[in-house]
Amino acid sequence: MKKLTILISCPDQVGLVTNITRVLASHQLNIVAMREFVDEENKAFFTRIACTGDLEETEKLRVKLLENLPNAADVNLITEQEKQVAVLVTKEYHCLSEILIKNQFKTLGANVQCVIGNYEILRNFTEMLGIPYFHISHENKEKEQFESEIKEIINQFDIDYLVLAKFMRILSADFVKDYAGKIINIHHSFLPAFIGANPYRRAFERGVKIIGATAHFVTNNLDEGPIITQHTTHIDHNFGVKEMIRAGKEIEKKVLLDALELIFEDRVFVSGNKTIVFK
Amino acid sequence: MKKLTILISCPDQVGLVTNITRVLASHQLNIVAMREFVDEENKAFFTRIACTGDLEETEKLRVKLLENLPNAADVNLITEQEKQVAVLVTKEYHCLSEILIKNQFKTLGANVQCVIGNYEILRNFTEMLGIPYFHISHENKEKEQFESEIKEIINQFDIDYLVLAKFMRILSADFVKDYAGKIINIHHSFLPAFIGANPYRRAFERGVKIIGATAHFVTNNLDEGPIITQHTTHIDHNFGVKEMIRAGKEIEKKVLLDALELIFEDRVFVSGNKTIVFK
Amino acid sequence: MKKLTILISCPDQVGLVTNITRVLASHQLNIVAMREFVDEENKAFFTRIACTGDLEETEKLRVKLLENLPNAADVNLITEQEKQVAVLVTKEYHCLSEILIKNQFKTLGANVQCVIGNYEILRNFTEMLGIPYFHISHENKEKEQFESEIKEIINQFDIDYLVLAKFMRILSADFVKDYAGKIINIHHSFLPAFIGANPYRRAFERGVKIIGATAHFVTNNLDEGPIITQHTTHIDHNFGVKEMIRAGKEIEKKVLLDALELIFEDRVFVSGNKTIVFK
Amino acid sequence: MKKLTILISCPDQVGLVTNITRVLASHQLNIVAMREFVDEENKAFFTRIACTGDLEETEKLRVKLLENLPNAADVNLITEQEKQVAVLVTKEYHCLSEILIKNQFKTLGANVQCVIGNYEILRNFTEMLGIPYFHISHENKEKEQFESEIKEIINQFDIDYLVLAKFMRILSADFVKDYAGKIINIHHSFLPAFIGANPYRRAFERGVKIIGATAHFVTNNLDEGPIITQHTTHIDHNFGVKEMIRAGKEIEKKVLLDALELIFEDRVFVSGNKTIVFK
Repeated sequence: MKKLTILISCPDQVGLVTNITRVLASHQLNIVAMREFVDEENKAFFTRIACTGDLEETEKLRVKLLENLPNAADVNLITEQEKQVAVLVTKEYHCLSEILIKNQFKTLGANVQCVIGNYEILRNFTEMLGIPYFHISHENKEKEQFESEIKEIINQFDIDYLVLAKFMRILSADFVKDYAGKIINIHHSFLPAFIGANPYRRAFERGVKIIGATAHFVTNNLDEGPIITQHTTHIDHNFGVKEMIRAGKEIEKKVLLDALELIFEDRVFVSGNKTIVFK
Repeated sequence: MKKLTILISCPDQVGLVTNITRVLASHQLNIVAMREFVDEENKAFFTRIACTGDLEETEKLRVKLLENLPNAADVNLITEQEKQVAVLVTKEYHCLSEILIKNQFKTLGANVQCVIGNYEILRNFTEMLGIPYFHISHENKEKEQFESEIKEIINQFDIDYLVLAKFMRILSADFVKDYAGKIINIHHSFLPAFIGANPYRRAFERGVKIIGATAHFVTNNLDEGPIITQHTTHIDHNFGVKEMIRAGKEIEKKVLLDALELIFEDRVFVSGNKTIVFK
Repeated sequence: MKKLTILISCPDQVGLVTNITRVLASHQLNIVAMREFVDEENKAFFTRIACTGDLEETEKLRVKLLENLPNAADVNLITEQEKQVAVLVTKEYHCLSEILIKNQFKTLGANVQCVIGNYEILRNFTEMLGIPYFHISHENKEKEQFESEIKEIINQFDIDYLVLAKFMRILSADFVKDYAGKIINIHHSFLPAFIGANPYRRAFERGVKIIGATAHFVTNNLDEGPIITQHTTHIDHNFGVKEMIRAGKEIEKKVLLDALELIFEDRVFVSGNKTIVFK
Repeated sequence: MKKLTILISCPDQVGLVTNITRVLASHQLNIVAMREFVDEENKAFFTRIACTGDLEETEKLRVKLLENLPNAADVNLITEQEKQVAVLVTKEYHCLSEILIKNQFKTLGANVQCVIGNYEILRNFTEMLGIPYFHISHENKEKEQFESEIKEIINQFDIDYLVLAKFMRILSADFVKDYAGKIINIHHSFLPAFIGANPYRRAFERGVKIIGATAHFVTNNLDEGPIITQHTTHIDHNFGVKEMIRAGKEIEKKVLLDALELIFEDRVFVSGNKTIVFK
């Protein structure tokens, strides 16, 4: 008995759950868990079904499901294959280390293939844990050149997701397009507050009483991509910018790792500028 | 088009979701939301289905569902009828007021029929909001007599749930049996810590750094019934017993009202000594 | 032995704590609790001292403290006199009811003198609890006229603070000036995100995974005043605008009441556009 | 200008703050931050003062402070010397890795001298990060022998604190006595609930809706020592024991690291069975 995760999104109509479950039953698949959501505004239906059974005939199952669903249905059958990941970093270690430690102890739910940094600063640590580190400097070159060098590295591996673990360079529209829906970023504020640079400095100046972080898919609009997870923590007047950054790092790593866990377990749909997350 | 909530629990077996959804489809019912859970330890299946459709034939639907489910299935079809509630109190106002205010503004999801108190202290406030208040003193009488007087009041109304909103008397096994699965209590600690009396005093003496509250169904074992909701908040060494009680009240009312919302929306199954809560 | 709360703010310099505590000792005052903060950026010193002793000579104490502090020191001696409050509302009950219930049971730390609403909708509830309700419509009149009518009501009472408990009209610069540092507002978002109208609608459209609320002093810049308290709660894709508003109300009332408790206990300093809150 | 942290505890009496600050002023020390607490039940006074100044004469300062304080005063002057730490582990990596990563990047506030494990399982990881790992098996030997071997390792280093980072052996009264006030443990439940073994199994069986963790100083009574930090997180019926353990690990590492940060910054007093924590 193998495990199969089925992700379906399609225009909403009456009888979808019945149709889908009938097809699964006819393939002798046992439903272990099922979640669905109807986006009323866009009349769209989403479901995630975890099931067990004989998976010899997944392609036949896929065809059968499509026959029983509205046109424009998207059916994704996922067997237990580990995701492959590349991590992009700049200077800060706290998100990278959280990822590499879980990778080291096989609790990440994915496999880190390499780390790419625009400084040398995190090489030593990355290599201590046996992961290849590639230094691609952004200095003295066009962004196009910089990104082309990054792509060259990524293309050496079979990468499912790019994780921006405090990677402080803005990626071009072309780069993002090439990895559409595959790039996850951690932003160090509770978006949409403090979009862009220096969020903690601006939080300090505004005198907020909470700070937070946001993990989101990267799109062409800076910090505007579909949000996956967010979290905040209370601060008070004793927090200067330095203390905010320090406390913020704990939130950032939690928020990013929560998002990665959800993504690596195939629990996240992107729908327009939003996510549907079946926890 | 009316709304129908279907609650089903039964022994687990392959094909349950398919069977159920097929029956619903044959009755032209549209599934709006569906949640299910398999208790692997006890091989039990639970589902909550919100649907819309013509409800003329709910009894036929019930029969049809039972025909397509294992023996010992429990099928509960709930149309949009408001729950009727009696509230039991002692001296503290904070849970009662939260309930009565939501009742006043029709956001409780239930209808408070009466308040029963073993002191006179909360009569004035209750009556200000137009709700009947019955004073049943526990003094100078046997518990049997005390409870019999309470039952007499309750029986005047058509009560679905008894809410113990800081009612500080322990109910007898007989009383609890008469209202099995219908009594909700708020306990002023994060159970199973500090079962019984004076939890804040004991929390103070232990030097804990969190305090909390627990809403649970009442069974014969003191503070041992199925837990519905729990919540904690941080405290520090500045909190004496008095400050804990004060901060605790905010948690207590939140936890109790969260539990009541879930119950009044038919989102809570009791299974042995646990609850399954479909949020 | 009476209680005295001393609030001091002044330019920072070496020896302030020593100077202040020496003066207090010379007046036979016993320090129960003392908190201080140095704003390094603005070289400003703030302290809140709770003490007990004979308070016959508070004016002499004040003079003595000023003699021992830098020029431009602000010394505020507060004896246990209850704050008087007016509450402004529009249509929503949840913040008003929280305030009036605590007022009713003498746990607000202040005394509600009256409620002013720009609709009749909350009159019935307010009067049920025995508080005067004044209906000042904003319709068919200039803002100046509207606010002048509000001031007329307020001036009938000896008001320390105006609480905007979901009062949905923007107050003019002149009005705000007249009650500088005395108006507290609850905004239904985690500022600075979603400044202005319809924050939940915009939160829904952005697809955020948290919603929140902010209590702040009102200044001339909309939603830009010094923040006192903020809090967030997690939401998911199941939350439409309606569900956000419902969940948001619980946060709003908590955040506003937390702020009021801090203010009524004289724990909040305003410094420029920020607050210093000695919890 | 150097930094000095002063910790004082003594019987409470009038004028302590004045006396202390006068002595500091006479030594030209500038108070940067000061916190104090009076334990009313035990009539005890605690203060933590961060100051800057010339520290040539700390011993004279100490004598002077003692002269101006009640008998039985405890005065601790701490200059910026890094704490030295030994970490004890069994099989789980999540607390150890959090400590070693912060140690690696110099953000722990202490220096990890060695890791001692009763299995070999964490050697590889520890050594990857360049920290000495000592394997002391508990098998086939008396507890006395086991602990004597541990002490031998510890005594090779100049250790300030022993951190039990999921060390699953109960230490003897003699061992604890030798390191009184220096051993910090992380317990995988919100104490006093689920003292002892298998807290997640018991949490599962009780059907709780929160799980948590507690960091505490180790005393002779199992899981009864003074609590430093605690935290909880919500769970639901979908959490089996395995899922609780997984979610619990995130809480455990947060709670332990929060406690260590407070201890390494000299913010924690132990008073009887409680802690006073000046955040």
